[in-house]
Amino acid sequence: MNKDFIKMGLELIKKADAAYLTTIDENGFPSTRAMLNLKNAVQFPKLVDFMSQYDEDFTLFFTTNTSSIKVSQILNNARVAVYYCDPETWHGVMCQGEIEIVQDKDIKHAIWQNGWTMYYPQGKDSEDYAILKLKPAYIKSYYQFQQNDLKL
Amino acid sequence: MNKDFIKMGLELIKKADAAYLTTIDENGFPSTRAMLNLKNAVQFPKLVDFMSQYDEDFTLFFTTNTSSIKVSQILNNARVAVYYCDPETWHGVMCQGEIEIVQDKDIKHAIWQNGWTMYYPQGKDSEDYAILKLKPAYIKSYYQFQQNDLKL
Repeated sequence: MNKDFIKMGLELIKKADAAYLTTIDENGFPSTRAMLNLKNAVQFPKLVDFMSQYDEDFTLFFTTNTSSIKVSQILNNARVAVYYCDPETWHGVMCQGEIEIVQDKDIKHAIWQNGWTMYYPQGKDSEDYAILKLKPAYIKSYYQFQQNDLKL
Repeated sequence: MNKDFIKMGLELIKKADAAYLTTIDENGFPSTRAMLNLKNAVQFPKLVDFMSQYDEDFTLFFTTNTSSIKVSQILNNARVAVYYCDPETWHGVMCQGEIEIVQDKDIKHAIWQNGWTMYYPQGKDSEDYAILKLKPAYIKSYYQFQQNDLKL
């Protein structure tokens, strides 16, 4: 059971159009927004090798602006959920844990994509280019009226 | 600006494949899952008239099982976010507030759909048939690098 759940979960994560990241805001309310799904193999073919290293423990990476509200929310409360969903089949996977802001330049450079000067005009060493890393402590999947979960 | 934001937000909500509801769990972590989007006019044509009454203040309804984990999470902490997204255009709308469990039988009966005996075998008076109601206190939209928000 767990084997299928992990296999199907990774498959969903690698094809989902977007990742929905929920932080907790300064008033204690959840706050959700869509994020680039850097594990999507079609959207980010150059990241497949890098991201695959982290398949085993479902570690996820996201790019954002250091100046964004979500970063200040995370500095205040690191507890997040990331949700992936295929609305056609209602297969959903939630990854929950404490998210980190990556300081390691090697990781930041490895994830950088050429087109991102649109978001970070000063490039991969821009102070406003931030990478978030989530090594989930808990994963829950929803599929065909069944819920399965896994503590990592 | 606000007028377009409201108009576009309602349009998105009425066509989104699913709604992503995030509660806060017993450990203080956000917990997200897909919900039926009862405002989707194609998926729920019989609910269009009922739901349209609530367009002005973006009030949302969801159906769930009284026995579900999310209901116990809501009884413990009513703060939620609901997110709608079109991943093709990256248009997203988040509705945030305190969600209620509806006791009013007229509302529960008005929302009931014939096919739902699949979820609630005992029908619209089943104790396990619960309706959740969110009258958002805060709405935030994401579109084309712009964020707009509205306090209600």
